[in-house]
Amino acid sequence: MTITDRPSLGSVARSLAAMRRARPLVHNITNFVAMDISANVLLAAGASPAMVHSTDEVETFVPLVDALVINVGTLQSSSLAAMRLAALAAGRAGKPWVLDPVGMGITPFRNRGIVDLLALKPAILRGNAGEILAIAGSTGVVRGVDSAATTEDATAAAHRLAASEGIVVAVTGEYDIVTDGRRAVTIEGGHPLMPLVTGMGCALSALSAAFAAVTSPLEAAAAACAMFAAAGALAGETAAGPASLRTAFIDALYRLSAEDLTTRVRISALEPATAA
Amino acid sequence: MTITDRPSLGSVARSLAAMRRARPLVHNITNFVAMDISANVLLAAGASPAMVHSTDEVETFVPLVDALVINVGTLQSSSLAAMRLAALAAGRAGKPWVLDPVGMGITPFRNRGIVDLLALKPAILRGNAGEILAIAGSTGVVRGVDSAATTEDATAAAHRLAASEGIVVAVTGEYDIVTDGRRAVTIEGGHPLMPLVTGMGCALSALSAAFAAVTSPLEAAAAACAMFAAAGALAGETAAGPASLRTAFIDALYRLSAEDLTTRVRISALEPATAA
Amino acid sequence: MTITDRPSLGSVARSLAAMRRARPLVHNITNFVAMDISANVLLAAGASPAMVHSTDEVETFVPLVDALVINVGTLQSSSLAAMRLAALAAGRAGKPWVLDPVGMGITPFRNRGIVDLLALKPAILRGNAGEILAIAGSTGVVRGVDSAATTEDATAAAHRLAASEGIVVAVTGEYDIVTDGRRAVTIEGGHPLMPLVTGMGCALSALSAAFAAVTSPLEAAAAACAMFAAAGALAGETAAGPASLRTAFIDALYRLSAEDLTTRVRISALEPATAA
Repeated sequence: MTITDRPSLGSVARSLAAMRRARPLVHNITNFVAMDISANVLLAAGASPAMVHSTDEVETFVPLVDALVINVGTLQSSSLAAMRLAALAAGRAGKPWVLDPVGMGITPFRNRGIVDLLALKPAILRGNAGEILAIAGSTGVVRGVDSAATTEDATAAAHRLAASEGIVVAVTGEYDIVTDGRRAVTIEGGHPLMPLVTGMGCALSALSAAFAAVTSPLEAAAAACAMFAAAGALAGETAAGPASLRTAFIDALYRLSAEDLTTRVRISALEPATAA
Repeated sequence: MTITDRPSLGSVARSLAAMRRARPLVHNITNFVAMDISANVLLAAGASPAMVHSTDEVETFVPLVDALVINVGTLQSSSLAAMRLAALAAGRAGKPWVLDPVGMGITPFRNRGIVDLLALKPAILRGNAGEILAIAGSTGVVRGVDSAATTEDATAAAHRLAASEGIVVAVTGEYDIVTDGRRAVTIEGGHPLMPLVTGMGCALSALSAAFAAVTSPLEAAAAACAMFAAAGALAGETAAGPASLRTAFIDALYRLSAEDLTTRVRISALEPATAA
Repeated sequence: MTITDRPSLGSVARSLAAMRRARPLVHNITNFVAMDISANVLLAAGASPAMVHSTDEVETFVPLVDALVINVGTLQSSSLAAMRLAALAAGRAGKPWVLDPVGMGITPFRNRGIVDLLALKPAILRGNAGEILAIAGSTGVVRGVDSAATTEDATAAAHRLAASEGIVVAVTGEYDIVTDGRRAVTIEGGHPLMPLVTGMGCALSALSAAFAAVTSPLEAAAAACAMFAAAGALAGETAAGPASLRTAFIDALYRLSAEDLTTRVRISALEPATAA
C-alpha cells in the first residue's frame, strides 16, 4: 500500500454501501450500560447485533459471526474469561475484532485485563485519549469513562502503539484520529452534545467491528468514525439536549447518505511528521 | 371451547381493559439488552414490572407476582439456574409464564437450556420464525437475534409444536401467528422499522405475560401481538427512524384505545387446513 | 445548624451551580435496568458517571471518586459482596454514599442485604414510601418496584429512621420529603407520567450522590429532588407519553436554570409537629 491508500470520504461512502449490503453479524461482548445503544446503533446503521457473553458458548458462537467487539466497561472476572475465549476463537477463525479499553488506567485489575486482551491482537483498538495514553504507558489521566486528555495529546502515542502492536488505533474525542502506524487520518464532524450521551464511544467501537467485516481495519475504523461524525452533526441541528440528540443520532445513522458524509465530515491526511 | 372462540379485535380490546384494570405485576428474568425496553413497555401498556433474577430470591418472589417471563437472550449458567427455579416455582404456584427462546439454534449450550425450560411447560412460547423452527427440530437458520425464515415458513411447525407440547406458540415477524394447536389466528399491523429497534420481541414476550395474568394464553399472546401491531403502526406514521419509532411506540402503548386496535390491526382466523 | 438551615429554592440553585462546576465523578453500583438512565441523567445534569461493580476493583476505585451510589435493584450474591466492599471503602475514604433499597420487603435475601448495607451508614437513604416503611419495620406493602403506600404514610417513619440512624432519608413519590430527623422539607413538582419511566427513582438516587459530593446530605437530597421536580414539570408540558417524557426530561436536566427551579418547584418546611 502506498501513502495515498488512506481512508477518504469516497472510500468511506463505498464502505458504508458495502456494510449495509453485507449486513454483518456483529458479536458484542460489551458492558451493561452500553448494550442497548450498541445494539440500536448497529441495527440503525445496517448491521445485525448479537449479544452473547457466556464462557459456555462464546467459542462456539464466534465462528458463526462476521466480526467481534470486546468492551471491558463493566468488567468482572467471569466476563474477562469469556472475552479471552472469544478473542482466541476470533484469532483461530480469522474474524476481525475490536477492543474497547474502557477505563484503562483506573485499577490494576482492569489494566491487567486490557493488556492481556491487547496481546491477543485485535484488528482495531478504539479508545479516548486518556485510555490510549494509559495503554501506551504514558501517564494518562482518566476520569471515569471520560478523558481529561485531548486527541491531540494522544496522537503520537497512538501512532507508536499502532506501529509496535501491528494494529489500527483509533482515538476519538473532539476530533478523531485513526492510524496504523504508517498512515493516519483525522476525522472531524460531530457535535458537542455527543459526549453527554452514555455509551457513544462503546457504540462506535461496535460499529467499527461491523465495518471490519467488510473492509480493512484502517478503513473500517475511519468509516465508523465518519459515520458517527456525520450523524452527530445532523442530529445536533435539531437536538434540544443529550436525549433528543441520541434519538436524532440513531435516526440519522439509519438514513445517512453518501452526501451527508460529504457535507458534514472532513477527513484529512495526517502528515507523517506530525503523526510520528 | 369451539372453533369460534378465537381471539378477535373485540376480545383483545376487552383484554386490554382488563389488563390495565388489574395492573399485573410481571416478574422478568430477561436479558441485559432488553431490560430497559421491557420495563418501559410494561409500564406504558399498563402493567407493573419487576426484575428479579438471583437464585437467592426468585423462588420466594414468584408466588407474589401475577405472571413471569423468562428470556434467555444473554444466557449464563447462573441465570439459567435462576430461570429453572423460577419456572418450577411458577408451576407450583399456578402462575402463567412465557418463554422467549432468543437465539435458539446458535449454540448447544443455549439449545439445551431452552429445551430444558420448555419441558417445564410455559403457558406461551414466543419467538421469531427461525427460533420456532429450530425448536421444532426443523433446520432453522438463525442469524443473530434475527431470523432468516418467515412467519409463513414457521406456521406448520408452530402448530405442531403447540399441539405436541400443549402450549400456545406465537411466531412474530412481518405478521404474527398465535396457535394452541387447534385454533390459530394471524395478526397484521406494525411497521417495517420495528425490527430495527433492539429488544422489541423481548418486550412483546413480557407484554404477553402481562396479558396472561388476566386471560387465557391464546388470548394473551394475541392481545400482546395486537397491541404491538397497533402501537407500531401508529408510531410509524411519525417516525423518522428506529429511535424516534421506539419513542413514539412506547407513547402509543400508553395512549392506545380500542379504536386504535380496530383501525390499525387485522386479526384473521387461520383455517385449520392451512394451520395443520 | 439551626432550624432555619433548611434547603430552599435559593440553596438548591446554589448547589446546582456548585455541582455543575465540580462535575463530580459518581461511582454507580446499580441495577441492570437503571444503568442507562442513571448514566444519562448524571451526564445531562452535569456530573460524570462511572459504572464499576466487580469485587476485583471496587475498593481500589472508590478512593478515586467523589461520591458513590449503591442500588440493590437486580441484587445477586456477587453484587452484594461488591456493594459491601465499596461501602466500607467509602467509609474509610470519607466519600459520601447513597443507598437505594429497591424492593425492600419482597424477599428475605433482599431484606437482609439492605439492612446490612444500611448498617454501613450511607449519607442518604432514598426510596419510595413502601421501601422506607418496610425498612422502618412497619408493614410496608411493596408491589414490585412500585409502592402502594404514599409519601404521607411514610413521613413519620422516615423521620424516626433518619434520627435513629443518623442519616438523611428521602421518600419520593407524588411529592417528596427529605429529613435528617430534626429538619425536614417537602418538595413538590414533577409530572404524573414520571413513575411510568423505569429507573427514574434509581437515577434520582444517583443524582443525590452527585450533589452529596459538593454539599451536605440534607441539601444534596433536596437538590436532587428539586432538580427532578423541575425537569419533570418542564418535560410534562410537551410529552405525549412516558417515552417522550423521558427524552424531554433528560434534555431539561441539561438546560435547567435557577429560574426553572423557582417557577416549577415548591420547597416547604415540614413543621416538627408533623414530622415527628
